[in-house]
Amino acid sequence: MTNEELLAIAALNSWKLVIGRFDQRVAALTDEQFQKQVAPGKNRLFYLVGHLTAVHDRMFSMLDIGERLHPELDEPYITNPDGAVTDPLSASDLKKAWTEVNSRLTAAFESFTPQDWLKKHTAVSDEDFAKDPTRNRLAVVMSRTNHASFHTGQAVLTK
Amino acid sequence: MTNEELLAIAALNSWKLVIGRFDQRVAALTDEQFQKQVAPGKNRLFYLVGHLTAVHDRMFSMLDIGERLHPELDEPYITNPDGAVTDPLSASDLKKAWTEVNSRLTAAFESFTPQDWLKKHTAVSDEDFAKDPTRNRLAVVMSRTNHASFHTGQAVLTK
Repeated sequence: MTNEELLAIAALNSWKLVIGRFDQRVAALTDEQFQKQVAPGKNRLFYLVGHLTAVHDRMFSMLDIGERLHPELDEPYITNPDGAVTDPLSASDLKKAWTEVNSRLTAAFESFTPQDWLKKHTAVSDEDFAKDPTRNRLAVVMSRTNHASFHTGQAVLTK
Repeated sequence: MTNEELLAIAALNSWKLVIGRFDQRVAALTDEQFQKQVAPGKNRLFYLVGHLTAVHDRMFSMLDIGERLHPELDEPYITNPDGAVTDPLSASDLKKAWTEVNSRLTAAFESFTPQDWLKKHTAVSDEDFAKDPTRNRLAVVMSRTNHASFHTGQAVLTK
């Protein structure tokens, strides 16, 4: 492997590890546990899974790798706080959406060359990207990986 | 910047962002808030700061970049669960240790070339590293960055 490939693969492995850990946590939940709050008055696990699915689903357009799969999750899990909107999907359908979104993203990331990782994301203009080439796809995926870790730390508190 | 540099800088920026966010959270705490548990029966913020400081302090030897600064934090914050051992440092001394450890690590990371990031960490043998060159310093720092995000997600619950 080249140095460029080794540097890029670290980010891919980090993403896969974090998603895998959250997967384990989600897969082990009964529907009842899925409704538990991570702490008194805080988000339900159900909300966290909806939130991460919606945020990850938005990466398809942000990274220019296809159409998003679940735009219906933005309103209940990004725009609004937990409890404001009725859950649009059942627990099992939400788990399916979570798996589907992340599987497709991971497949796309696995096909990226180092140069693909360094392409600009779509939320930055050509002009701004020319000034700051660190605003690339890699930065987005590393940010989302940290964000997923952040919420995994909350999800494990219900154990 | 070369592609290699751009790929490495994404990891450095990710580390700095996550540490900066936890810093903000820690700096804003009164001594009383510092003793709060993140959820009923879970770790205190104090413990989380001790834990992250100890885990990060261990990176000096793991990355072969110098001597660790606070070995006294391992027993209370890594080996034992919260409450088992008396806190060896005051709140303000622990905050200082946290800042000192991370500042020195960040300075070392800022001096790394892409090739430095790809060197093996000290917990892997030459033989195993030859088989799997992804077991490098970059993988360690990305893992610690995710770990810090994980506990930041818990720390914000006391807000």
